[in-house]
Amino acid sequence: MSFATLADFEAALAAPIAPDAEVIAQARARQADLTKPPGSLGRLEEIAIFFAGWQGRARPRLERGRAVVFAGNHGVVAHNVSAFPAAVTAQMVANFEHGGAAINALSRAAGLELKVVALDLDRPTADFTVAPAMTEDECLAALSAGASTVEAGLDLLVLGEMGIGNTTAAAALCARSLGGDAAVWVGPGTGIDDAGIARKVAVVDRAIACHADAPMTAFETLRRVGGREIAAIAGAVLRARQVRVPVLLDGFICCSAVAPLAVAAPASIAHCLAGHCSAEPGHRRLLAALGLEPILHLDMRLGEASGAAVAANIVRAALAAHDGMATFAEAGVSGAG
Amino acid sequence: MSFATLADFEAALAAPIAPDAEVIAQARARQADLTKPPGSLGRLEEIAIFFAGWQGRARPRLERGRAVVFAGNHGVVAHNVSAFPAAVTAQMVANFEHGGAAINALSRAAGLELKVVALDLDRPTADFTVAPAMTEDECLAALSAGASTVEAGLDLLVLGEMGIGNTTAAAALCARSLGGDAAVWVGPGTGIDDAGIARKVAVVDRAIACHADAPMTAFETLRRVGGREIAAIAGAVLRARQVRVPVLLDGFICCSAVAPLAVAAPASIAHCLAGHCSAEPGHRRLLAALGLEPILHLDMRLGEASGAAVAANIVRAALAAHDGMATFAEAGVSGAG
Repeated sequence: MSFATLADFEAALAAPIAPDAEVIAQARARQADLTKPPGSLGRLEEIAIFFAGWQGRARPRLERGRAVVFAGNHGVVAHNVSAFPAAVTAQMVANFEHGGAAINALSRAAGLELKVVALDLDRPTADFTVAPAMTEDECLAALSAGASTVEAGLDLLVLGEMGIGNTTAAAALCARSLGGDAAVWVGPGTGIDDAGIARKVAVVDRAIACHADAPMTAFETLRRVGGREIAAIAGAVLRARQVRVPVLLDGFICCSAVAPLAVAAPASIAHCLAGHCSAEPGHRRLLAALGLEPILHLDMRLGEASGAAVAANIVRAALAAHDGMATFAEAGVSGAG
Repeated sequence: MSFATLADFEAALAAPIAPDAEVIAQARARQADLTKPPGSLGRLEEIAIFFAGWQGRARPRLERGRAVVFAGNHGVVAHNVSAFPAAVTAQMVANFEHGGAAINALSRAAGLELKVVALDLDRPTADFTVAPAMTEDECLAALSAGASTVEAGLDLLVLGEMGIGNTTAAAALCARSLGGDAAVWVGPGTGIDDAGIARKVAVVDRAIACHADAPMTAFETLRRVGGREIAAIAGAVLRARQVRVPVLLDGFICCSAVAPLAVAAPASIAHCLAGHCSAEPGHRRLLAALGLEPILHLDMRLGEASGAAVAANIVRAALAAHDGMATFAEAGVSGAG
């Protein structure tokens, strides 16, 4: 799949694709038969049933899990909105490729294949306080690059990003998609100070004002105040639903990429779980707005799919219990009296 | 180590054993050098530093992790305080031994060796509403059985329990160790109804009254209102500190076993982390009283070390990032500007 035209994107967003209700019922019945008090594995039971429904298997598996990190650069860094220089995006991509970043260690630990996709790092997006971040073609190319990382047969897709300046883009995406003052969506990112946060708020306010008259569609929001790595995440999410691959979303920026999709078509992210709630202040509010209950709360705020990769271990545990446990009948254990 | 006498227990409780401060400083310095914004791995960084201090290695490892599930039966079940019959304790031990329980699947998924220790299942403790649950010798034997499951060289110890009726014992341990009405410590356990909860509250009230004049020592509390599997957990925790093995505690019952230790000697549980916060209502209050911040919040309430075994995956991820990541210098990545 690629997003050759805006119509392709709109069709993917609106496609009526749902988990398999019959398989969900089978998985739920299995959970009720396993040797434990009903419901006592809590969220692990829900995760197993969720994966069953999307994979279409009453006993879902996690053999082919993939983490994808998309990287992009942002014209908005001209406004001094990050604690790190823009050159760090490419340096961190090299670090990913040499295996030295957190996501390398965390995806190995979780048994996930890792793909890194650098998107035109030498061509930052335009400064979205004065113009759309991307042309329509650029946005379609980024959506397509995201979609091309996903194929049928994956058991799990873990998504994340790297891009100096992209918490500012994420705040702008949230403010435009969900409303609220810029200040409720802006945070310290990688660790900017209070003066930097004030600059970010002003930048987001200007971005919202600059694009206020543009159509409030998912596509226009992604292309005007997003970025290439952000549009790529949106494309990967839409493609994953088409091929029924469940997704773990990472932190604030990753979730901001799906906010425009969720506002336009809530079912378009029904196959997504939130891996964690990050320490970036806007993330909690964003998860609540998206109706996502994060699996982990570990005060992580690194990005690069790190929180979602850690959450993949919880998925693995959930599926292992669901698949590996004996039933009351098999084990000869008495039920509740 | 064994607890042949009460003096052995008191000595283990009071022993001045602390993590290695120099190794902690080394691990903290390494975290500051890794290719990520400072602090951005949140709890994962704290866990890695904690394991470094207790293992005495600046780059701690998780090769030899062990989960131990202790099982015991309780005279207090005569008061109809559980949703399941007492025979289920032995049935579940058989299920553990045949590999069909949640903890089998979850310890396999986390790469942990599993040991199951059934403690005199055909000899339930005495009904603690009218007499001490155990004699002094019985309590010392249970403490020793716990200690004997732990040896130097383990990288991690995961502790849990199985025992029909033991949430009632746990509530009594909490009420006697930490104060508060029985009602704040009593919950549904494996799923008893409101009338059952009222019976449990009355039982805990009678137990507290029955033993009110006995010395408020850790040993007397464990032996009077505890149980064999609970005393075994306490013994394993004390032994683990002696050999500097970090511990992941499981849910309400497991944590109630260390409450008398923590009250008598707060440092005696300094090597313990709480694997999760369970859905049993008293657990959150107990964790707060113990000063433990749970790693996971997954609404689990199964016991048998299941929540702590899932948390072992988070430990593994934390140690993998700590050990496997490149430093800024190694990767050629620019620091914060």
